[in-house]
Amino acid sequence: MTPQNPKAQAQNLTPTAIQSAHTLIKPHIHQTPLLTSKTLNKLASTSQPDIADAAKPTLRFFFKCENYQRIGAFKARGAFHALLRLLERRGEEVVRRCGVVTHSSGNHAQALALAASTLNIPAYIVMPRISTVSKIEGTRSQGAEIVFSGSTAPEREAVVREVQARTGAILVPPYDDFDVICGQGTTGLELEAQYEALVNGEGGKRELDAVITPVGGGGLNAGVASYFSGKRTRVFGAEPSFEGADDCRRGLASEGRERVESVKSLTIADGLRTPVGVLNWEVLSDPRKVAGVYAVTEEQIKAAMRLVLERMKVVVESSAVVGLAVCLYNEEFRAMVEREAGSAGWDVGVVFSGGNTTVEAIGKLFS
Amino acid sequence: MTPQNPKAQAQNLTPTAIQSAHTLIKPHIHQTPLLTSKTLNKLASTSQPDIADAAKPTLRFFFKCENYQRIGAFKARGAFHALLRLLERRGEEVVRRCGVVTHSSGNHAQALALAASTLNIPAYIVMPRISTVSKIEGTRSQGAEIVFSGSTAPEREAVVREVQARTGAILVPPYDDFDVICGQGTTGLELEAQYEALVNGEGGKRELDAVITPVGGGGLNAGVASYFSGKRTRVFGAEPSFEGADDCRRGLASEGRERVESVKSLTIADGLRTPVGVLNWEVLSDPRKVAGVYAVTEEQIKAAMRLVLERMKVVVESSAVVGLAVCLYNEEFRAMVEREAGSAGWDVGVVFSGGNTTVEAIGKLFS
Repeated sequence: MTPQNPKAQAQNLTPTAIQSAHTLIKPHIHQTPLLTSKTLNKLASTSQPDIADAAKPTLRFFFKCENYQRIGAFKARGAFHALLRLLERRGEEVVRRCGVVTHSSGNHAQALALAASTLNIPAYIVMPRISTVSKIEGTRSQGAEIVFSGSTAPEREAVVREVQARTGAILVPPYDDFDVICGQGTTGLELEAQYEALVNGEGGKRELDAVITPVGGGGLNAGVASYFSGKRTRVFGAEPSFEGADDCRRGLASEGRERVESVKSLTIADGLRTPVGVLNWEVLSDPRKVAGVYAVTEEQIKAAMRLVLERMKVVVESSAVVGLAVCLYNEEFRAMVEREAGSAGWDVGVVFSGGNTTVEAIGKLFS
Repeated sequence: MTPQNPKAQAQNLTPTAIQSAHTLIKPHIHQTPLLTSKTLNKLASTSQPDIADAAKPTLRFFFKCENYQRIGAFKARGAFHALLRLLERRGEEVVRRCGVVTHSSGNHAQALALAASTLNIPAYIVMPRISTVSKIEGTRSQGAEIVFSGSTAPEREAVVREVQARTGAILVPPYDDFDVICGQGTTGLELEAQYEALVNGEGGKRELDAVITPVGGGGLNAGVASYFSGKRTRVFGAEPSFEGADDCRRGLASEGRERVESVKSLTIADGLRTPVGVLNWEVLSDPRKVAGVYAVTEEQIKAAMRLVLERMKVVVESSAVVGLAVCLYNEEFRAMVEREAGSAGWDVGVVFSGGNTTVEAIGKLFS
């Protein structure tokens, strides 16, 4: 389901729209912590030891920990916002009678299930039959009805249509949707407020220089960029480069989303295998909103994940650390910061998007 | 080096001594966060599904996260306190000329190295030649001089004596020492203050019902129990049972520390392989100070560690979770809580002692 008139919708993705979303979802979500790490700040200015003329920018990190969000990922924000708006627009009676449906085996499934059960709306989640037991149980324990499908996109979409025909359920897309994007954008609003409370003790006026988030379908990045549009803070996106998963970066380089062939990457950042959505592309390709998208290798993602787990003692999923990996290891990004920031350096908000992993998955990644 | 007159020293381990230690070390340590988890509270009253008549006590957990302490473990408290007292007693000139020495390959080594470099005192750390590179580098990066030895206790002690003969360095024991114990006890003081700030919004008067900490050499538990002595809060200890590592529990059961043969356990809780110290035994065997010591299996430790990593998204080392494992899985402890607490349940402070592990170690544990 492609968003209609994406250009007009993108123009309505304003800071005010994000603020309004935040007011609506605030009772249902956690204000996740903003963490700092002297160790990682220090590493940022000394990493890449093998490259003699490598950039050594001064970076001070502020980590927005959506791994501590409800269901363990920022997706709870978009799901609550989409359902609360649906109740406003269609009325409680209709929405509670029809229910909602989505296809996902990841964090969006659990987020929608939680939001739906909280708001007394029936939820149908279409999941591939090959999903792991823990994901199926995690979603079911939030009170949703699981409907199994085949693994390919057409198979899953066919089952969604079956569910809709049977129940009248309303589709809530995982990322390419105005209300979902507004919900995810509240991550940026909180990040800014917490940063300013932290650094501006007595009427100071420091502002974030930059914010970087992962880009999969692009909902989180588009929402955060919409919140900061018109402000001093620049927003960047981060993608895995493995097997072409950096479709957004490549689309920007070749001047068009449609010029990039659809890819099936098996990057370890499994939450970022999705291509960027149509509405999200409108935001991400607008240089007034997104200052650039950078990519990192699998080894760089693993190195960043190791640092977060071992040094910060914080559990994140591999998709969550691509922004940090860009800051630490992407030479193009680092040279740009050094050039733009000079010796003053940058205060950078880094969004850790989620923490849903298992001890077995961590073990496999580093075996 | 055995503490002299342990009975008299134990009597001086008072709440006032711990308070005084806290005042002294406060500028040098982190006030680590106190975390809660609805998921774990819920699991506590529903675990052990395979046992029909299992106890289902109501437990509300308050996790004191010393994994977020400097160098990643509570040991920083004792090391700073021991050195600050040494400077008071022996004078800066003597201590800075002679330096300090210890033998350890674990958290105490890094803690002493950090405290010594902060206070401008030379530190010599005797480590077995077979220590991992990361442990050696971690300790060296804190500014200490590493001196290698063989792996057995006599070999390590011989090298300590050599260092002392050469430099005059003063020995700072890892746990069986009055000043070290007072430092570790400040964990209990902070836990109580943070708990009361959290639960007693408007002049309320709820008090912690219990606190549980791991027991290896016993310094942390003895310090915390000394802080709570004379108060309502009961203090418990937790040990691994594998290959007899529950020497303290067995000593209490057989009415004597000296009745328990020295063991070499290879429990996964590698920070708790040490037998309980002489001075610590004086505290832990005093029923007015410690209400009981309980043991858990390797599988129970792993299950607790999985919950903390996957559900709380917090990285802990395996030694850190034995207290939680007792609360969740030790039937004797759980039946006792059910009996004593009734339907009101208990508010329990659970000390996570440290978080120094690696992604490889996590992988190996769950492979």
